[in-house]
Order: sequence, then structure tokens, then C-alpha cells
Amino acid sequence: MTWPRGRMRAAVVAAPGRVELAELPIPEPLPGHALVRVDHVGVCGTDLELLHGTAAYVRDGRVRFPHVFGHEWSGTVVAAEGDPDGPAPGDRVVGQTMLACRSCANCQRGRRNLCLRLREVGLYGQQGAAAEYIRMPVDSLATLPPEVTSLDATLVEPAVTVVAALGTAGVGVGDRVAVVGTGTIGLLAVQLAARSGGHVHAVGVDPAGLELAAALGAETTYQPGAAPPDAYDVVVEASGAAAGFATALRLAATGGRVAAVGVPTEPVTGFDAGDLVLRGVTVYGIRHGLDHYGTTIRLLAEGALEAKPLIHAVLPLERAAEAFHLLEHGRNGAPKIILSLREGA
Amino acid sequence: MTWPRGRMRAAVVAAPGRVELAELPIPEPLPGHALVRVDHVGVCGTDLELLHGTAAYVRDGRVRFPHVFGHEWSGTVVAAEGDPDGPAPGDRVVGQTMLACRSCANCQRGRRNLCLRLREVGLYGQQGAAAEYIRMPVDSLATLPPEVTSLDATLVEPAVTVVAALGTAGVGVGDRVAVVGTGTIGLLAVQLAARSGGHVHAVGVDPAGLELAAALGAETTYQPGAAPPDAYDVVVEASGAAAGFATALRLAATGGRVAAVGVPTEPVTGFDAGDLVLRGVTVYGIRHGLDHYGTTIRLLAEGALEAKPLIHAVLPLERAAEAFHLLEHGRNGAPKIILSLREGA
Amino acid sequence: MTWPRGRMRAAVVAAPGRVELAELPIPEPLPGHALVRVDHVGVCGTDLELLHGTAAYVRDGRVRFPHVFGHEWSGTVVAAEGDPDGPAPGDRVVGQTMLACRSCANCQRGRRNLCLRLREVGLYGQQGAAAEYIRMPVDSLATLPPEVTSLDATLVEPAVTVVAALGTAGVGVGDRVAVVGTGTIGLLAVQLAARSGGHVHAVGVDPAGLELAAALGAETTYQPGAAPPDAYDVVVEASGAAAGFATALRLAATGGRVAAVGVPTEPVTGFDAGDLVLRGVTVYGIRHGLDHYGTTIRLLAEGALEAKPLIHAVLPLERAAEAFHLLEHGRNGAPKIILSLREGA
Amino acid sequence: MTWPRGRMRAAVVAAPGRVELAELPIPEPLPGHALVRVDHVGVCGTDLELLHGTAAYVRDGRVRFPHVFGHEWSGTVVAAEGDPDGPAPGDRVVGQTMLACRSCANCQRGRRNLCLRLREVGLYGQQGAAAEYIRMPVDSLATLPPEVTSLDATLVEPAVTVVAALGTAGVGVGDRVAVVGTGTIGLLAVQLAARSGGHVHAVGVDPAGLELAAALGAETTYQPGAAPPDAYDVVVEASGAAAGFATALRLAATGGRVAAVGVPTEPVTGFDAGDLVLRGVTVYGIRHGLDHYGTTIRLLAEGALEAKPLIHAVLPLERAAEAFHLLEHGRNGAPKIILSLREGA
Ligand SMILES: NC(=O)c1ccc[n+]([C@@H]2O[C@H](COP(=O)([O-])OP(=O)(O)OC[C@H]3O[C@@H](n4cnc5c(N)ncnc54)[C@H](OP(=O)(O)O)[C@@H]3O)[C@@H](O)[C@H]2O)c1
Ligand SMILES: NC(=O)c1ccc[n+]([C@@H]2O[C@H](COP(=O)([O-])OP(=O)(O)OC[C@H]3O[C@@H](n4cnc5c(N)ncnc54)[C@H](OP(=O)(O)O)[C@@H]3O)[C@@H](O)[C@H]2O)c1
Ligand SMILES: NC(=O)c1ccc[n+]([C@@H]2O[C@H](COP(=O)([O-])OP(=O)(O)OC[C@H]3O[C@@H](n4cnc5c(N)ncnc54)[C@H](OP(=O)(O)O)[C@@H]3O)[C@@H](O)[C@H]2O)c1
Ligand SMILES: NC(=O)c1ccc[n+]([C@@H]2O[C@H](COP(=O)([O-])OP(=O)(O)OC[C@H]3O[C@@H](n4cnc5c(N)ncnc54)[C@H](OP(=O)(O)O)[C@@H]3O)[C@@H](O)[C@H]2O)c1
Ligand SMILES: [Zn+2]
Ligand SMILES: [Zn+2]
Ligand SMILES: [Zn+2]
Ligand SMILES: [Zn+2]
Repeated sequence: MTWPRGRMRAAVVAAPGRVELAELPIPEPLPGHALVRVDHVGVCGTDLELLHGTAAYVRDGRVRFPHVFGHEWSGTVVAAEGDPDGPAPGDRVVGQTMLACRSCANCQRGRRNLCLRLREVGLYGQQGAAAEYIRMPVDSLATLPPEVTSLDATLVEPAVTVVAALGTAGVGVGDRVAVVGTGTIGLLAVQLAARSGGHVHAVGVDPAGLELAAALGAETTYQPGAAPPDAYDVVVEASGAAAGFATALRLAATGGRVAAVGVPTEPVTGFDAGDLVLRGVTVYGIRHGLDHYGTTIRLLAEGALEAKPLIHAVLPLERAAEAFHLLEHGRNGAPKIILSLREGA
Repeated sequence: MTWPRGRMRAAVVAAPGRVELAELPIPEPLPGHALVRVDHVGVCGTDLELLHGTAAYVRDGRVRFPHVFGHEWSGTVVAAEGDPDGPAPGDRVVGQTMLACRSCANCQRGRRNLCLRLREVGLYGQQGAAAEYIRMPVDSLATLPPEVTSLDATLVEPAVTVVAALGTAGVGVGDRVAVVGTGTIGLLAVQLAARSGGHVHAVGVDPAGLELAAALGAETTYQPGAAPPDAYDVVVEASGAAAGFATALRLAATGGRVAAVGVPTEPVTGFDAGDLVLRGVTVYGIRHGLDHYGTTIRLLAEGALEAKPLIHAVLPLERAAEAFHLLEHGRNGAPKIILSLREGA
Repeated sequence: MTWPRGRMRAAVVAAPGRVELAELPIPEPLPGHALVRVDHVGVCGTDLELLHGTAAYVRDGRVRFPHVFGHEWSGTVVAAEGDPDGPAPGDRVVGQTMLACRSCANCQRGRRNLCLRLREVGLYGQQGAAAEYIRMPVDSLATLPPEVTSLDATLVEPAVTVVAALGTAGVGVGDRVAVVGTGTIGLLAVQLAARSGGHVHAVGVDPAGLELAAALGAETTYQPGAAPPDAYDVVVEASGAAAGFATALRLAATGGRVAAVGVPTEPVTGFDAGDLVLRGVTVYGIRHGLDHYGTTIRLLAEGALEAKPLIHAVLPLERAAEAFHLLEHGRNGAPKIILSLREGA
Repeated sequence: MTWPRGRMRAAVVAAPGRVELAELPIPEPLPGHALVRVDHVGVCGTDLELLHGTAAYVRDGRVRFPHVFGHEWSGTVVAAEGDPDGPAPGDRVVGQTMLACRSCANCQRGRRNLCLRLREVGLYGQQGAAAEYIRMPVDSLATLPPEVTSLDATLVEPAVTVVAALGTAGVGVGDRVAVVGTGTIGLLAVQLAARSGGHVHAVGVDPAGLELAAALGAETTYQPGAAPPDAYDVVVEASGAAAGFATALRLAATGGRVAAVGVPTEPVTGFDAGDLVLRGVTVYGIRHGLDHYGTTIRLLAEGALEAKPLIHAVLPLERAAEAFHLLEHGRNGAPKIILSLREGA
């Protein structure tokens, strides 16, 4: 197949607070890159922060407007100029958000997720996937097996970090696990921890989310204030709320491990570091799961992780502004809003 | 040798704020226990908190007055009713502060330092060492080799936790290490980290302490505000100040590890959990080094750790009140005040 | 309840090759100990080695005849002289095989399973459980919840090591796991690895054992020669055959982990250490799971581990000789032979 | 600077057993690659195996003759077509031997040293450095600081694996460490383990090598038969002899760790896997230290690792055949033979 030229539809944040449709040039061929036709793209809280201009990337100028957002996506390769062992035209793929530099001290130590010169697809330094086409380095793509639908595959991106979190905290069979937050990250963590043999309790503020957590494997659910303190071998902080972080520490048992995935934008008030020390708790800051695309796709293919129950709505790209509005105001239970670029969607 | 009977001298906290001398019965024989004649006993910040009544143990009633303090000590066994392989009369020993219960869930998992039914010698549940004699379970004693003097051996107790901290955080050759705080814990951490092949920078507020840190192996010293952020593979928090904890997190490099030993009694203000997550930092709460007495004593015997430079003054037991006063107000550089029970000391 | 005196029935290895019934004195009271009425006791390959005199313990003289065997057992406490928080008369318990010394270098580091001055119940240094009563240190007992029957509880002892093996090798969700050997250890490992979210393949020589493995969670089964080399993230060596060890290494993928539980008594022929290095394989020698009684009992109570399908036969103590014969010659599929001390059993 | 064209001098293995000089085309420009003028190139045992045709690479046809060997080298960039943040003309560099594929399952998990589609510079799939010029992917180069001479830098390549070995086995201050073998790997391991705070004993067959080990930090030296069994927390197997591997296991203490770096080409006879299990020993197969170039170069720059004492002779490229002969027959103590491509060398 040849690399298409011309123009394409895209959805952009035109300026803080404004989502619009746009027509942009299809990205040019580049050695080592593939052009992918986007099938679906998820919208998440990070995109909302871009929209509102509260994201660090916006404030420090790394983002330029108009900005093509979209980092949770799936698509089909249409042309590739790269590694013959890599994805080929026709392959169904997801793309990695983090484009590691390969040469900084952390990349050279094999710790790509800690890259010191990162670009992030759809966030800064690289066009996102809310467009008909996206150009990606071939080795930042991962191929999908037939068992994983294009729609479900939009969950790969958030799920890789959940795989990282549970792998780092090390859930063993019989471990008591609390998951704080019942959004996308939390509901994936509930599933994965249950599948790892843990006894999972979900802790959240949204009753519909807690119900969904129970359906996906949580043995018990709690509002934050009601959950038992000093009681869990592993706690996954998946709320991104400063209060959720404090809750997570409180729930961890003496000698417990906290995998912190949520990214609070407010300081944690009343943080009791002495308690953390005296109870011998470990806190792992989890910076993305770049190393776990292969595993995550396998888990979706096997049904160990289910994506469907997390999807609230699928809208065509043209309704991007509505998607953002729904994400912000209309959420209840299932957290995920997806934009579709498929014909007739 | 027979187990002596009768009465003994002791120093006690008679009530919050009041240190006194007292005469108490020598502890009775008990199976599995040894009676040890105390040679030296250190006074530390934890004892100050007992004195001021600010320690958790006092507030929650675990401490009863009059209280024989003293958990950093060395002595000589005078009688033993226990394991024939254990310490024998005449053996020079130090004693473990933590008396683990052996039967709680954590003890049964081999994690004695996380015991859920702990007693702590000199802190609560067990008479301390500021007395002529102390009775100890034989398997809570560790024998001293001739190379370690009785005076230096009072540093074993704080040093075991430093060994735990560096072991948990894992200092490798060439690692950049920051130690926050230049008290007893900090100055021991500086030595051990340097000896592990790390490049150690000391961060503190006390110029004399920083000077001592430099003499003991720190390549550079900083006031907290001047230390470079995002720069260290390993940070040891050894100040116990809430501000010190915040500093420790700030200094940790992307992907770095923080060993938190200090126990802040105030909440950490403005704690930025999002930064911890986005920079992939791990924080290990270090709850004591109960497993490391053997190693620590070997390190002192070999000179890998030096105790002498940390000792500010040695006073006879009779001057216990003065020792507390000195600890609180007269400190400068060398942090350690020791009480001696030796004749003529 | 008072500590019973008098004599009791027992089964003993009277001399290499000879199992007999005997009448022995009931053990005397001892501080810190409990007397337990034995309900059931399993016979395993290690007991066979004692019988045949091939065990290291026999050859080096640590075992004296007549020897009361039995280290996989359950019972009911009848009297206790110890810790008030410990087991009380009437409590149903299992006992730990390893009696760690508490004072050797490894015990003092919290690594009791690596004790350098071990005694092992029923193996050497301590009477076994093939008797009406056994005296045990109270902190070497673990209490059973009502969900775990006395018969099933005889599997706790082998299962603790399986918990240690999988914990050390770290099975993650989606990991490819091979278990070599379908005896007691192997069939427990199959269950636990499946429950941890692994894809388990069983590799063995006994068709009935492989069938049982499939029923307990193995997705596929292989004869050793047919299993794919360089293919598994985790391999559990549970055959104890030298050839099984070689198989285990061969099956491990590049970067894989082998948990070696089986104890070959023959040297491994043709061991290719170069292959281990070039493929970056890690081998963990698993020396018992002393730290995992609590977890293991919970797993049995929850049904995460099933004991029943592993039990081939239950015979009264009087038929001990027959039990040994059955273990050696009559086995097929379910590996476990249990002796009962219950009335009418 | 422009990319030079034309022909260059090289040393090649023309056929098994035959080293010759040759004139070859200078490699053509390639995107993402740099051309480096080679300064020095070490010859090692792996090259000898290529020469003798015993290497796996030769036997399975991955090597084609004439073969330009040379994987331990340093040089100066003359032209680069790649990353502007990468090495630039004039930069002094070393090159990584392992060219990982970036897209196999292990590369995608950040475990590049376990790449499943590896090419190795100078070994197979890629021209070596025994030539005036070598073309390298820019992100497989590491820049040298002024403190590291070009000659010393030839030791970076073997040293990275030693850094990996000690990092994986985790040497702590006060650990007892045995290093088996006193060749290049062994002598680097002695230095690094001593620098990590370990007590290092060297175990070898070559008296001059043992003497050198003592000079570089070993506290004691032993012939293999004389070293104490069951005595070391960490053992580094650096001999590559099957007998050395057996020695390494024997020396490991109960609970000890063996880092196996040497690659025996013969099977280990009489390998006692039961002993490994019963003593709870872990064996880490160390497959190269690809992640550790940055750290290793820093260690050489700081003097934590010394290269000079390991260098036996420096010969001009023209005397390559003599270098191989010297390596095989004339060695004594210092193990390293270096070829120089510098004017007048
Ligand atoms: N570290 C990484 O690499 C990484 C990767 C992906 C995402 N993240 C972060 O992970 C966090 C979660 O992402 P997400 O996509 O799952 O977001 P989300 O869908 O918005 O989910 C957040 C959930 O937390 C709940 N919540 C809010 N306050 C809470 C509190 N005090 N206690 C308990 N639960 C509370 C929310 O309930 P309501 O819906 O009722 O408000 C919601 O269910 C975000 O901070 C995101 O930035 C981090
Ligand atoms: N986790 C455990 O098991 C364990 C065991 C032992 C000790 N500890 C704790 O470890 C901490 C240190 O103990 P220690 O005996 O070394 O106490 P210490 O002798 O009082 O030392 C504390 C040091 O920190 C300095 N400092 C105070 N505020 C600081 C700040 N904001 N930034 C940097 N440095 C600051 C102090 O300087 P000035 O002297 O000038 O104030 C002093 O040098 C205490 O909290 C103690 O409770 C914990
Ligand atoms: N490390 C520890 O702390 C620890 C604790 C408990 C047990 N163990 C050891 O673990 C091993 C297993 O114990 P167990 O009670 O499960 O013994 P077991 O019931 O005898 O099981 C051994 C199994 O391995 C099979 N087998 C024999 N040769 C084989 C081969 N070449 N390849 C694959 N499978 C083979 C046997 O088949 P057949 O029945 O057809 O022969 C049998 O199914 C023993 O060596 C035991 O000493 C170690
Ligand atoms: N895993 C990896 O990624 C990696 C990377 C680099 C190298 N390697 C391997 O590491 C090994 C060592 O490499 P090297 O360059 O250091 O080789 P080397 O210079 O030949 O050193 C081997 C040393 O071992 C000694 N030795 C021989 N037999 C011994 C025995 N039975 N016991 C104790 N010492 C014995 C040799 O003594 P004599 O000189 O007297 O024979 C020599 O001092 C080789 O197998 C090499 O292939 C592996
Ligand atoms: Zn990078
Ligand atoms: Zn306890
Ligand atoms: Zn012991
Ligand atoms: Zn690869």
C-alpha cells in the first residue's frame, strides 16, 4: 500500500476551553514510521485537563494550539517505512503514548518509562489520534490479535499502567487488596487484582462506580470513610484525588504496599509521614506502564480484563465537544467515552 | 554465676518533665531470660519525647510512670536461664529494643520488625536500661566482639535501622545519595552510604553537623534550600522533621528511592503526591532494623561504621537530668549523649 | 485441661526397612510448649527415605531408631504451658516441621527457614506425629479455622513450600507457568499458579497424575520430552528427579525464573550452565515455606487450594506399614496417603 | 564533517584458525547511524572461540568468513546521521556489543539484554571493530568523559556485565563475596565488590592472577579446592569453567546468591541440585550488562574501577595474529590484550 497524501479530518482543542473540528494535512512519510488509520479514540481526564488548560503541559508551554488530542486509540496500519519485522499494512494496532528518547540516562538503563526527554502522543510533542490518520514510530506500535476488538483496544493504554502498578506492588494469592477510585484505572485494577488471586475491596465516592466494581470482582465496596484502616496488603490509589491518596495510606496494613497511580493536582493535606514510617509502608509512584503493552493485549484477548463494561458511550468524531461535556458532567458508573472514526459510526 | 537479688540504682522519668534517680528491685529470674549489668546507655530524641509526654506511647497510656527509660545500651551478662547456645555470664552484649511476639501474623511470616504485638525495651511494656541491671530474653541479646567497646556499642541500636534503610533502598556503587539530617541516624547513614560506594551529599540545618558529615564521608553538604532537586538515586530521610520529609521527596531523582527513617510528629504540609507519581519515586517507610544486629556489630568491629565521632558527652547515671538538658539545648555537631554505669564514670 | 500422663500408641521406624507399632511415654510438660492430640498424619516421600535409610538425616546419624516419623499432621490441643495469646486447649492446629533456633545468624536476620541449627519434627531432633500425642513449642503451632477439616489440614505442610516457591518466583497474571512433576507438591503448585492468574502447563511421567493436574487447573499436559523448550516465564520443579531439574531449566524462557522445590538425590547429568547464563535464567532453591502457614491455611479455607483430590487413601495408624507400601508401590494419580488416629478410623 | 568513502584496513578471521589483515570498503552512510574511527580494540576469549570455530555463532552458521572481529573497543565519531542529542563528530565513544531489536517481546518489556532477535557487534550480524572504521546505530554509542582514556575504555564492554552481575546479586556492606576466576571479568568483579563494601575473596587457578586480585582488593585468595564451602553471601562465577561453576555453588552460604557470568562450554559434572535446594541458594544467570554503560563509564572516570592493571600488552592492528597467540599461550596475571589503530602504535 502507498502512503496516502492530502488532507484529513481531525478534532482539536483550538484554544483552552474550545473543541473544534479541523482539516489538517496527512502526516508525511518518515523513515522508521508507519501511518495508521485511526478507528477509535478514547477521551479521558487528562484530555479534560488539556481542554481546561490546567495540565502541566499547557501551563509550561509544551502544548501548542490548535492541539490534536487523543492518546487512547486503536487503528489499522495503512503504510509503513520501517522494520520488516514490525507491523505491516492491514495490521490492527494500538500505539504507545510515551515516545521515549532511547538515549537519555534512563532509556540507556532500560527504564524507558522514566525517560528524561519524553514526548507523549496527543499530549505534547506529537500529534494525537483524534484524526483520521496518525503517524507513529513503528516500534511504538503493538499489534492486536483478532480477539481484541478495535473498541475494546482503546482500553489498552490505561490498562498498561494498571499492569505496571500491580506488578510493582506484587499482588499474591490471598492478598487483601483495596482499590481507591472507580474510574477507568480503578475498575481495571479491580479486575486485575481479582484475577491475581487477591481479595479486592473497592473504595469510592460514586455508588454506580462501586456497583460496577462489585460486578467486576470486588468482594466488598466502601465509601472512603467506611473502609477499615491498617488492613490491606496492597492498595491501588486510582482516584487522582488528594483525599484518595490520604485514604490509600490509611488503608495500607503495617508492612503494606501502596501503588500510587492517580495524579493529584492539589497537595495532600495533613499527610502523616510518621505513620508511614512507623507502620513500615512502601509507596510506589507508578509512572506509566510503557513496558506492558504485550501483556495487556494478551490479558484482553483472554478475557482476563474486560473492556466493554467500562464503556459509557461511543460517539462519532464530529461530536467530540459533546464527548468532553459528557465526560465532565454526565458520568455515572461506566467511565469511558469513545470517539469513533469508522464509517457510519 | 548466680542471679543477684536485692535492689539497684536506676534513672527514671518520674512524671512528664521530671527525671529522677530511684532504687528499684533487681528483676527476678525468668526462664529464657538473662540478667545483664548495664555498662552504658544512650539518651536520644525518643527519650526526650517520653520526658515531654509527647510520645504516642505516653499519650495512649502504654507508658506508666515512674518509667525506667533507656533502649540504646550495652552491658555484661551476669546470669542466664536459657538457651545453652545463647549468651553466657561474662559475655558483653547489646540488647534489642523490639521484643517481637513470635506469634502474630507478621512474626509468623518472618517479619518481626512489623510485629503487631510489640513491646519495646525502655519505651513501653518493658523496663529500660537506665539502671544497674536489665532483664532480657536471651534471644533478644547480641554478643559483642572485643573490637567493639562498650561505649561505641550504644550506637548499635540506632545503626541497625540505618542498615535496614540502606539495604531496603539498595545503594549501588556510584549511586548519588542524599542524607537529610545530620543527627545520629543521619551521620551513620552518611558513613554507610559512602562505604557502599555511593556519592553522598549531606543536607542539614546545623553547620557543625554538616561539617561532621563531611568528615565522615559526605562529598558535599547543603542547607535544605540549596540542595539540587530531582538529583539523587537514593535519599535517606533522617531528620524526623516534616520539612525534611518534603525535602527528601524533592531531592529524589526520577525513578529514585527514598528511605524514610525519621518520624515526623507534624503533618507534612503541601505534600505533592502527583509529583511522586509523575517522577516514579518509591518511598520506603523504614520501621526499625531488628534483623540487622549481627551485621551492624560486624560493621562497627571492622571500622566500617565509626561511633566515636558521634559522641558528644559521657555522664554518670546520676547526672541523667543534665544529660536530657544537654541533649535538648546544648547540642552542636556530635549528637550523642551517653550515661555511664561504670565505677568511677 | 491438665496435661495427660501415661503411655500412648505410636508408629515407628524401628530400624531401616521396618515399620512397627510401639507404646511410648506421653511427652512431659515443658514451658512454652503444648501437648496436641494428633488427628491425622500424612506419609510422604521423605518418610520413605527415612524408612529406606537413604535420607541424609539417617546417613549422618541425626536420626536415632526407633524413630517416630510424621511431619504432615493436624490435631487438637489438649494442654498448653505458654503464651496466653497462643493456641489453647480445644484449638485445632497444625504444627510446623521446622523448629528454628531463634539465635543463629539467619534466625537473627528474620530468615528462619534458613536456620543454621534447625531441628525438624518427625525427621530429626524431635518426635514426629505418628503417635497419639505430640509436644510442640506453642509458637510452632498454627490454628485452623472451621472451614479446614482435619484431613485436609495434613496438606498444609507441603503447601507452605509451594506458597513460598510461587511467591519467590513471582507469578503474574498471564504468565506462562510450567510445573514439572504431578505429585503432592506439583498438584498444589498447579492449583496455586492457576489461581495466581498464570497459564499452567503440567509436565510429568504419570498419566493419571497429568489427568489430575488438568482437572485442577492445568491448561495443557505434557510428557517431559514433549514440552516446548525456552517457553515459560516461571517453572516449578516439583519432581525431585534429577531429570526433572534438567527439564525445568530447558523449559524456562529467556529471562525466566525456576523455583526448584524438588530435592534430587542423584546428580544432574549434563547440566548446561552456559545455557542458563546465555538465556539469563534465574534458579531459586526453595528451602521450605516456614513463613507461610497463615497464608496457606487461609487459601485452604477459601478453597483457593483443594486438598481432597490429592488424597489417595486414609488408613488407621495401625496400618502404617501398609501405608508405606501403598505409597511406594500402589500410587496412581492422587499422591497422598494419610494415617488417621481418630476413633473408629 | 563528511562521511568518508573508500577503503580501510581491517583484521579478520579469514577462516577457522586463520587471522589475516584485509582491505575492506568503509561502511556506507545509513540513517540513524554514526561512523566511528576505532582507536583501540580488545581481544578476548570469545574472539578465541570464533577463531577456533568452537563458538555457537560459528557452529550454527551465524558467522560468515571472512569475519571482522572486535567487540571491546573505543573510538572517535567522524560522522553521524542521526539524533541531534546523540554523539557528534569528535566525540570519544565506546559502542555497545548487543544491538537489540526494539520490537521483540523482551525489548518491548524494557529487557533489551534479553532481546530475542539480537545482533552482536563483531560476533554475528554486524561487522566488528578490528578495523579503521565501524558504523554504529547512534543510540548504541556511549560518550566518554576526558578522564577515561581510549585504552582504558576498551574495558567498558566487559565491565558492564560485572556491574549487572553485582547489581543483580546485590552486594551489601559487610557481605562476604567470593569471585571465582581471575581473568578480565573476575578482576573487575573483585574491584567492584570491594568498592561496594564487601569482603572479597578471590578463588582461582592462576597464582599471578590471584596476586593481582589481592592487589585490586581481595582480602584473601584461594585455589579452588582450598576455599571454604557454604561461606559466602554472594559468589560471582567468572571463570567460564564448568568446574568453576560447581565451585561457585559450593562456596555459596545457606541462603546465598550466585551471579553466574562465565559461560561454560562443557556440561557441569556431578551438579548437586538437591544441595542448591536444601541450602536455599539462588543462581542468577547474567546475560550481559547492556543497561549499564553509563554507570560503568562513570565508575572508570572516578577510579572506582581501574583498567590499567588488567592490560597485559598493546599491539598494533597489524600484529593481530600475534595478539591471539599471546592471549592463548602467553597469559599470566594481567589478562587483557589490546590492539591499537592509532598512528605509530
Ligand atoms: N500514573 C500514570 O501513569 C497514570 C496513567 C493513567 C491515569 N493516571 C491517573 O489516574 C487517575 C485516575 O484516572 P481515571 O482515568 O481512572 O480517572 P477517573 O475515571 O476520573 O476516575 C477517578 C475515580 O476516582 C473517584 N474519586 C474521586 N475522588 C475520590 C475520593 N476522594 N476517594 C475515592 N474515589 C474518588 C471518582 O469518582 P467520581 O467519578 O464520582 O468523581 C472516579 O471514580 C487520574 O489522576 C489520572 O491522571 C495516571
Ligand atoms: N524508623 C525507625 O525505626 C527509627 C529509628 C531511630 C530513629 N528514628 C527517627 O529518626 C529521626 C532522627 O533520629 P536522630 O536520633 O538522628 O535525631 P537527631 O539526632 O535529633 O537528628 C535530627 C537531625 O535533623 C536535623 N534537622 C532538623 N530539621 C531539619 C530539616 N528541616 N532539614 C534537615 N535537617 C533537619 C537536626 O538538626 P538540629 O540538630 O540542628 O535540629 C538534626 O541534625 C527521628 O525522627 C527519630 O525518631 C526512627
Ligand atoms: N524444598 C522443600 O522444602 C521441599 C518440601 C517438600 C517436598 N520437597 C521435595 O519435593 C519433591 C516432590 O515432593 P512430592 O511430595 O510431590 O513427591 P511425589 O509425590 O513423589 O511427586 C513426584 C512427582 O514427580 C514425578 N516424576 C518423577 N520423575 C519425573 C521426571 N523425570 N519428570 C517429571 N516428573 C517426574 C513423579 O511421577 P511418578 O509418581 O510416576 O514417579 C511424581 O508425580 C520431593 O523431592 C520432595 O523431597 C521439597
Ligand atoms: N554473561 C556474559 O554476558 C558474559 C560477558 C563477558 C564474558 N563472559 C564470560 O565470562 C567468562 C570469563 O571471561 P574472561 O574474559 O574473564 O575470561 P578469562 O580472562 O579467560 O578468565 C577466566 C579465568 O578463570 C580462570 N579459571 C579457569 N578455570 C578455573 C577454575 N576451574 N576455577 C577457577 N578459575 C578458573 C582462568 O585461569 P587461567 O587463566 O589460568 O586459565 C582465568 O583467570 C567467560 O566464560 C566469558 O565467556 C560472559
Ligand atoms: Zn529517554
Ligand atoms: Zn508479632
Ligand atoms: Zn536458627
Ligand atoms: Zn529484541
